[in-house]
Amino acid sequence: MNIGLIQMACSASTGENLERAVAKVEEAVKGGAQIICLPELFRSQYFCQQEDVTLFDLAEPIPGPSIKALSRVAKTCRVTILVSIFERRTAGVYHNSLVVLDERGEIVGLYRKMHIPDDPAYFEKFYFTPGDLGFQAIKTAHATVGPLVCWDQWYPEAARMTALQGAEVLCYPTAIGWHPQEKHPEGQAQRDAWMTIQRSHAIANGVFVVAVNRVGCEAPAGGDGLEFWGSSFVCDPFGVVLAQASVDQEETLVVDIDLKRIEEVRRNWPFLRDRRIDAYEGITKRFLDEPA
Amino acid sequence: MNIGLIQMACSASTGENLERAVAKVEEAVKGGAQIICLPELFRSQYFCQQEDVTLFDLAEPIPGPSIKALSRVAKTCRVTILVSIFERRTAGVYHNSLVVLDERGEIVGLYRKMHIPDDPAYFEKFYFTPGDLGFQAIKTAHATVGPLVCWDQWYPEAARMTALQGAEVLCYPTAIGWHPQEKHPEGQAQRDAWMTIQRSHAIANGVFVVAVNRVGCEAPAGGDGLEFWGSSFVCDPFGVVLAQASVDQEETLVVDIDLKRIEEVRRNWPFLRDRRIDAYEGITKRFLDEPA
Repeated sequence: MNIGLIQMACSASTGENLERAVAKVEEAVKGGAQIICLPELFRSQYFCQQEDVTLFDLAEPIPGPSIKALSRVAKTCRVTILVSIFERRTAGVYHNSLVVLDERGEIVGLYRKMHIPDDPAYFEKFYFTPGDLGFQAIKTAHATVGPLVCWDQWYPEAARMTALQGAEVLCYPTAIGWHPQEKHPEGQAQRDAWMTIQRSHAIANGVFVVAVNRVGCEAPAGGDGLEFWGSSFVCDPFGVVLAQASVDQEETLVVDIDLKRIEEVRRNWPFLRDRRIDAYEGITKRFLDEPA
Repeated sequence: MNIGLIQMACSASTGENLERAVAKVEEAVKGGAQIICLPELFRSQYFCQQEDVTLFDLAEPIPGPSIKALSRVAKTCRVTILVSIFERRTAGVYHNSLVVLDERGEIVGLYRKMHIPDDPAYFEKFYFTPGDLGFQAIKTAHATVGPLVCWDQWYPEAARMTALQGAEVLCYPTAIGWHPQEKHPEGQAQRDAWMTIQRSHAIANGVFVVAVNRVGCEAPAGGDGLEFWGSSFVCDPFGVVLAQASVDQEETLVVDIDLKRIEEVRRNWPFLRDRRIDAYEGITKRFLDEPA
């Protein structure tokens, strides 16, 4: 089966971003994609670079304009689409959510980002209430997908919880980039760590991993901005990178993956067999600084 | 501070292996090493390539000849040594253990390998009772070390449990190699996955990781044998490889590490802050195939 990754740049116009996303999904469909993943919060520029209450206006209900538009495409083209969205759940409760649309255009999965970052220029704790729907595996026509979002990618627990529910393909829509002043000399190590941790989830769990990032520089007034590093990729259940996009160009990747590879890798590297589930209880603690 | 890694080949003579290990520790001390890690089960060839009850004769009590010899070196040289050992606990109960000796030559830590593999030519479930001492962080004069062994390296839970107890340096004595018939074309992906998963533990937890493997081909009568791939390495808390040995030569690495780097990395990439400990309970299950 074929996975489509939409690596795109996002302008200040939400309407334009949505139109371009739709066009790129259609392009991926023409290339044979059956499950298509858009980048995190593609409908706008990455507004979390600043804390501004008026930016909550960017949030949409589910379903709202973005979901309706992509639902039509999913139905018309008979494909599964993972749509990252700034969700307005009610006044004062907003989430960084990921909607899974099936080939009938129906919502078959709703995931709300569980791990919320807060770092200079990534002020997400201001905008997003932490997810309350837990980790999930969503059956779709062509594969069981594991919806996850950006910062979740740094957490082995998130990948494990998702894989243990039967996910075959972990999908991480992402908005990650360099602080311009850190790009040299830290930038290479940062991008490398980002790839390494996600490839490790593939290896530890014997699943495919798909990461979809945006590209381009986005600098709000008064800020240095962020240079999103693209590099969207797919890796197989042993962490082998099957395809990867550039750091700075829009690209639509369509990647053939063979789900049978999961069974093959897990037979030869049977990590799931030997987990010491009797000894992991401490994982649910913040830090083990007190006697058990 | 300086970490010493002893990458060595192991002959059929246990006496010779122990003598050579002692000499190599002394060499690392001359190079400035303060904490020294030997490879997994260095006192013998990797006997788990076959299931043979007479090979239990290789097991030793703790303390036994190996621990006594290395204890003398630790005391004389005033260094910490991590000694991997085939432990005879009682008749019928044997472990793949890791002893931490302090600079007085005293045993300050005993870890018993928690995750036991069983694969063609790695028949460890025949020999080793799974560890019953849990994951640990051991304070030593120069750093808090996290003792882990080989197959443990594929488990994010093991690294997490150890780091959450305050370990600053995860140490993985290892015996891993290629099946000769798999080296091409699988070998490179295997070694790469092995590095990736261990570097990911450094990244996820903000700790140093030390992996110490053996080198050389060991083929018992009637078997194709294994070609141990060396590649012992140290990486920093962001997964950056600081030093790495070759795939086929004995090497003693002495690597300067700055423990202050842990604080620096964890401030800039505050993964531990955002863990969703309310949502990880499923980690203690084998598989989440039943409704919660």
